[in-house]
Amino acid sequence: MQDARSYDGTGHVDFVGAGPGDPELLTLKALRAFERADVILHDRLISAEVLAMAGKTAALVDVGKAGFGPSWKQADIDALLVEHALKGQRIVRLKSGDPTLFGRLDEEIEAVEASGISWTIIPGITAASGAVAGIGQSLTRRGRNSSVRFLTGHDMKGFADHDWAALARPGSVAAIYMGKKSARFIQGRLIMHGADRATPITLVENASRPDQRIVSTNLDQLPADLNAAEMDGPTLTFYGLAPRQAAKTLTEFKKEHA
Amino acid sequence: MQDARSYDGTGHVDFVGAGPGDPELLTLKALRAFERADVILHDRLISAEVLAMAGKTAALVDVGKAGFGPSWKQADIDALLVEHALKGQRIVRLKSGDPTLFGRLDEEIEAVEASGISWTIIPGITAASGAVAGIGQSLTRRGRNSSVRFLTGHDMKGFADHDWAALARPGSVAAIYMGKKSARFIQGRLIMHGADRATPITLVENASRPDQRIVSTNLDQLPADLNAAEMDGPTLTFYGLAPRQAAKTLTEFKKEHA
Repeated sequence: MQDARSYDGTGHVDFVGAGPGDPELLTLKALRAFERADVILHDRLISAEVLAMAGKTAALVDVGKAGFGPSWKQADIDALLVEHALKGQRIVRLKSGDPTLFGRLDEEIEAVEASGISWTIIPGITAASGAVAGIGQSLTRRGRNSSVRFLTGHDMKGFADHDWAALARPGSVAAIYMGKKSARFIQGRLIMHGADRATPITLVENASRPDQRIVSTNLDQLPADLNAAEMDGPTLTFYGLAPRQAAKTLTEFKKEHA
Repeated sequence: MQDARSYDGTGHVDFVGAGPGDPELLTLKALRAFERADVILHDRLISAEVLAMAGKTAALVDVGKAGFGPSWKQADIDALLVEHALKGQRIVRLKSGDPTLFGRLDEEIEAVEASGISWTIIPGITAASGAVAGIGQSLTRRGRNSSVRFLTGHDMKGFADHDWAALARPGSVAAIYMGKKSARFIQGRLIMHGADRATPITLVENASRPDQRIVSTNLDQLPADLNAAEMDGPTLTFYGLAPRQAAKTLTEFKKEHA
């Protein structure tokens, strides 16, 4: 690894949003970054179709999971970004969805910045936008909700009681990222704060991909229906939103898993 | 106008997100929809560069403002969508950012659906993603905020007191759309609920465009600095977020407007 102090300034890192999975949801700017890149460091959840477009000329490195061992540590990814850039390479750091939403972007920017490497952020379609398009709904709607919250199911310790009270009110809408493991916890808190057990919940697995799957349920049935659905792809949970034609979708799901 | 009951089913409406203004932030899917479209009905705030890409083959109709009179009414836009589709045309309804976020999408879908016309949603990069990339920050960050709220400065009657209390807590982050006119109202509510007057606020005008402008201020100085900046382009307000290297950006703005 070169010394940062002798760095000639030719390396560069583009933090690029890959969108939710459909390669057609890549931006033109992302494609240009792929073409210029020497190496692309990507998360595990990037779809094969997106990787096929990304890897036409650049080398692909999966930093979501090591070849033989456990997941990469954040510090190892930071070090790899810096190491390649200090060699004068152009790097794309490819993250699912939009890198600024639950992308652990800041840690990597700080590592790159500390070494004097130039960088830019290329936004992507976040999972919530991709998923809500798939259920034919809006995240906001006049007369229903003039705000929407994006939250993560991980790191729930910092989510204070007042927020649950606000979410529990009728008409609240939230897009919950990585919400499968915390589904029962979220359900408990919301019911404790007075949320209606009939509040619609929609789970969208593999949003925008050919294997997209939609499960329409409610707060009361969330843990049971989530368990029955056995979703192992990336899943977005909408709180307070039902798919357009919810009944039909629900019927299809029940039939599939009968 | 044809009768919906005799409609032959060949018309179609794609509700397409135009992104924040940089034409390179269009998705491949949006470009494909442009190519297939007979007519593109677009909002007033779509950038000239995006319209240049959209209008290569299709006819462009500005439904944001009538040629000689006041703004179009929502009902007129709904009627125009239906009228064109019932003639068997393929229509792109082009909206700024992502159509599912503050895009008044539902009213138009309902009009189209009521006439038996097929439709789809093609997500776009929302203004908050474009703007936050421009200030080199994340909307979420481990240890700071595990959620972010997107809200609109309009339609404030429905925005309840508990939400202000939650936003007023240290570490809260919100992306406020159309927040210029309501800046003083928002400031008052937040301070009343105990928000720190030094909470950083960042205004991003014309996000992702060549004339993008960033104003870094705080809750105390928001109305004064917003007034001094004389922003007349679309502006995103970040509550609880300062640009990376805030001091430098702030200096540049103060110099420009000295």
